Amino acid sequence: MDKKKIEVCYSPAMFPYYENREAIVVVTDILRASSAIVTAFMNGVRKIIPVETLEEAKACKERGYMVAAERDGIVRDFADFGNSPYNFTRERVEGREIVYSTTNGTQAIHLAASGRQVLIGAYLNLGALARHVIREQHDLLILCAGWKNKYNLEDTLFAGALAQRVLEDPGFHTICDATLGAMDLYDMAKGDLMGYIDKVAQRTRLRNNRLDDVIGYCHETDLTGVIPVLKDDHLVAL
Amino acid sequence: MDKKKIEVCYSPAMFPYYENREAIVVVTDILRASSAIVTAFMNGVRKIIPVETLEEAKACKERGYMVAAERDGIVRDFADFGNSPYNFTRERVEGREIVYSTTNGTQAIHLAASGRQVLIGAYLNLGALARHVIREQHDLLILCAGWKNKYNLEDTLFAGALAQRVLEDPGFHTICDATLGAMDLYDMAKGDLMGYIDKVAQRTRLRNNRLDDVIGYCHETDLTGVIPVLKDDHLVAL
Repeated sequence: MDKKKIEVCYSPAMFPYYENREAIVVVTDILRASSAIVTAFMNGVRKIIPVETLEEAKACKERGYMVAAERDGIVRDFADFGNSPYNFTRERVEGREIVYSTTNGTQAIHLAASGRQVLIGAYLNLGALARHVIREQHDLLILCAGWKNKYNLEDTLFAGALAQRVLEDPGFHTICDATLGAMDLYDMAKGDLMGYIDKVAQRTRLRNNRLDDVIGYCHETDLTGVIPVLKDDHLVAL
Repeated sequence: MDKKKIEVCYSPAMFPYYENREAIVVVTDILRASSAIVTAFMNGVRKIIPVETLEEAKACKERGYMVAAERDGIVRDFADFGNSPYNFTRERVEGREIVYSTTNGTQAIHLAASGRQVLIGAYLNLGALARHVIREQHDLLILCAGWKNKYNLEDTLFAGALAQRVLEDPGFHTICDATLGAMDLYDMAKGDLMGYIDKVAQRTRLRNNRLDDVIGYCHETDLTGVIPVLKDDHLVAL
């Protein structure tokens, strides 16, 4: 039987060249959108509606939705909160529907929709993702949200971590240079993940805006078994 | 004085997000186009005219040009030769003008033309490139040709090697994650560069077509001081 392949796409700008309708697409934006979304589902949110533009987000707010919206890490004034995972507490989100728009994450989710299934990935649900992909035995495409279509290290490391876990199953293989590079960087960094993350550009951006309190949390592994999945135009728990 | 910045773009598809008119752009396609072009100038070629399409290349052949053209590593039947550096011997190329079209390389060269200066980079002229960039004291943008707009490791490693050399000068810095990642991968690989390259996808493609005899040569460092530079629509020695 042919093995299923793993590929990593480092930027939404490269997605057309990796697009694979047979693949399960895992979208990641470790600092902070995908970590926040997984946290919201861990805390019982019912539905998250990703919207691309701030105009859409604002219109949803006016229609009565709870709205999370930020650009460049800064909460927009019309929004209820931004994309710190710490905002998505059980008290605030349980049983609710939330409209969500971020700098990089929501665009990547919409792009990924051509895949067989679109999942939201973070360290927080890493093990659950790997088990699901192995159970399903379909190709895996990991889409890094990046930073404004540029490459970023924190998403790359996560992609390497997830690829390694899935490759433990003999049904998968990879000949994708981006996957091989991501796994090598993860191997290099994993002994001191926080030390490594200290040098990435997004760490500096978050620190400059005093938003870097979540970095440790966003790199905690296997806190939850929940996997957000795209269903029609919104995210629900798998 | 503000330091000059170094950035690495892993794919032509991401170039619009890295574009920098102030930068010296170094285009690289280690296996094999940029290594072949540097070899040609090392052996005295007078001018290389990069063309994007095979149709253009064929039309040039009919007008009497010497033509190098390949797709997916295979020489096209109308062409004089493909892009093995071994084709560009002094006997064949000295004093000549050559029209050149490859899978990934020539498209990247045209894309880069918005930069302040466009240079062709390979391990063969690594030291000369670094000295030139340091002397000029402008931003450096390294554009990896990649493979059909996907990321590849061999170009990434070269980008890491060049960035490291230039960063030895105190006038340069980087906050670019792609540059940091490339330098880390190069550090990991450099002790046994051929062992590392053994796993990259392009190695497999070349081996399958029996074209992998040039891989060692394409990773030899500082064989020449010549730097091909884009002038109008063609390449000449700097």
